[in-house]
Amino acid sequence: MSVEPTNVAIIGLGLLGGSLGLALKDKGYNRLGWARREETRIQALVQDVIDETSEDVELVLNQADLTIICLPIPKIMEFCEQYADKFKPGSVVTDIGSVKEVIVIRGEKAFETLDVEFVGSHPMAGTEKSGLDASFAEMYNGAAVFVTPTDNSTNRAVKLVEKLWKDINTTPVQLSVQEHDNLVAHTSHISHVLALALTLAVLDCDEDTEKLRYDGCASGFRDTSRITSSNPQMWREIIENNQPAVLDVVKSVEKEWHDIRTVIENKEYDKLESLFAKGKVLRDDWMKYRYN
Amino acid sequence: MSVEPTNVAIIGLGLLGGSLGLALKDKGYNRLGWARREETRIQALVQDVIDETSEDVELVLNQADLTIICLPIPKIMEFCEQYADKFKPGSVVTDIGSVKEVIVIRGEKAFETLDVEFVGSHPMAGTEKSGLDASFAEMYNGAAVFVTPTDNSTNRAVKLVEKLWKDINTTPVQLSVQEHDNLVAHTSHISHVLALALTLAVLDCDEDTEKLRYDGCASGFRDTSRITSSNPQMWREIIENNQPAVLDVVKSVEKEWHDIRTVIENKEYDKLESLFAKGKVLRDDWMKYRYN
Repeated sequence: MSVEPTNVAIIGLGLLGGSLGLALKDKGYNRLGWARREETRIQALVQDVIDETSEDVELVLNQADLTIICLPIPKIMEFCEQYADKFKPGSVVTDIGSVKEVIVIRGEKAFETLDVEFVGSHPMAGTEKSGLDASFAEMYNGAAVFVTPTDNSTNRAVKLVEKLWKDINTTPVQLSVQEHDNLVAHTSHISHVLALALTLAVLDCDEDTEKLRYDGCASGFRDTSRITSSNPQMWREIIENNQPAVLDVVKSVEKEWHDIRTVIENKEYDKLESLFAKGKVLRDDWMKYRYN
Repeated sequence: MSVEPTNVAIIGLGLLGGSLGLALKDKGYNRLGWARREETRIQALVQDVIDETSEDVELVLNQADLTIICLPIPKIMEFCEQYADKFKPGSVVTDIGSVKEVIVIRGEKAFETLDVEFVGSHPMAGTEKSGLDASFAEMYNGAAVFVTPTDNSTNRAVKLVEKLWKDINTTPVQLSVQEHDNLVAHTSHISHVLALALTLAVLDCDEDTEKLRYDGCASGFRDTSRITSSNPQMWREIIENNQPAVLDVVKSVEKEWHDIRTVIENKEYDKLESLFAKGKVLRDDWMKYRYN
């Protein structure tokens, strides 16, 4: 079992990095962790999110056989470029960013001349909250994790990354970076656009109306709009780095929306019921696949 | 306390009727219940959802000081018309239907010449599930309940209905039927249209694509699409009976959607971040109001 890494470094101890640290406990890894703020590093140690830390990120990087960068998208790319020559020779680097093409291009380029390999990852897990305090060990449980090797990737590096994800009870699925970005525009990014449009249409109104709307909103609105409470900067960065794919899905949703609107406008209620029935079967089948 | 009803009749023992029975336990009511199917009546008795039942709905109605009709929208109106002269003289009738104008017009008309009064109600509570098995005592907890008196309503009847809702820890809010139908088109009905458009855009695809989409969908999609798993016939009936208001909100959402789409198309990412930030503040404030 010579591929098993002893030292894993988690860079960034927010919701994703923190939950990863918690999930990796007792899985045979020595968890090194680093965050910019000292308080966060100390809190992570005290709460057993990580085993070791250092103020000096270079001391962390040069010990790690596998580094997972859990930072916002632009910071992932900047971090690779800034510290490329500080990573341990022979080590592998991955990330958790929600888009893959831009990250993997710059990640591979950063380590091009070095004995360090970058392989992109994207775990399909998260909540609308942020920060170490929102972390929990079960967050990744049962999730799919997209791993996006390129023609440059070695089998060894991909296996190391996939083993990490398997060890915390997720299922790695290999995709190209382009397939990935198109896929998550559908399965994740577009939901944020829809939830935002809903929230603005319902709650952006004068004060008297708002008071009534506050009472009229219940669990349906709560769940349909939940992800509107996500970090605005993070979602700006995700869409900014996946704009063409998101725009394509915007158009797909508009097609469906137009069909439903026409049916309502024309009072074709049997057709409306068929659409609702089709939607229910599609979602119920997915729920069975994902949660049963 | 002469207004306190002794006998309350729950007509229909699905999710809403069943949860109402459970919530009313030990609140000083004798809970009569009726459902079309014998198995449901027996199950409701055995599970202490109601105190008494009868195969003969007329025996239930002529004992009840307050009747709450927990049936689908068309059935509420048909039930009032079919059994109008079987209700106890001096009694009050309400319902739980998601639209109010059509129901209240026909409800008042059904009892016009009788000593029975109809006052509409709409509790802002529910789940995507249906049936007695999905019922739970806490479902109504903390909800707003819209009560929609008209010029014909007596104070006594409105108070009786509001007392029932207060007794199960909900907050009655009075509105006209028109105000109500416009309001819930915003706070509830439109979410079902959005969730359906999302589900169709993401999951209505060929088999190979579906397999990938299944893996790519996570908790964001799960919650944004949750209400797509609701009863298709029920949602057809709701929109069918509130079509003009729903169409108006369809147009409001299209305006917001168009603004967000334009910002993404034009790569105005600072503006996009501001929109996300505005949505987050609006939703977080509502969550604080509703759940804290």
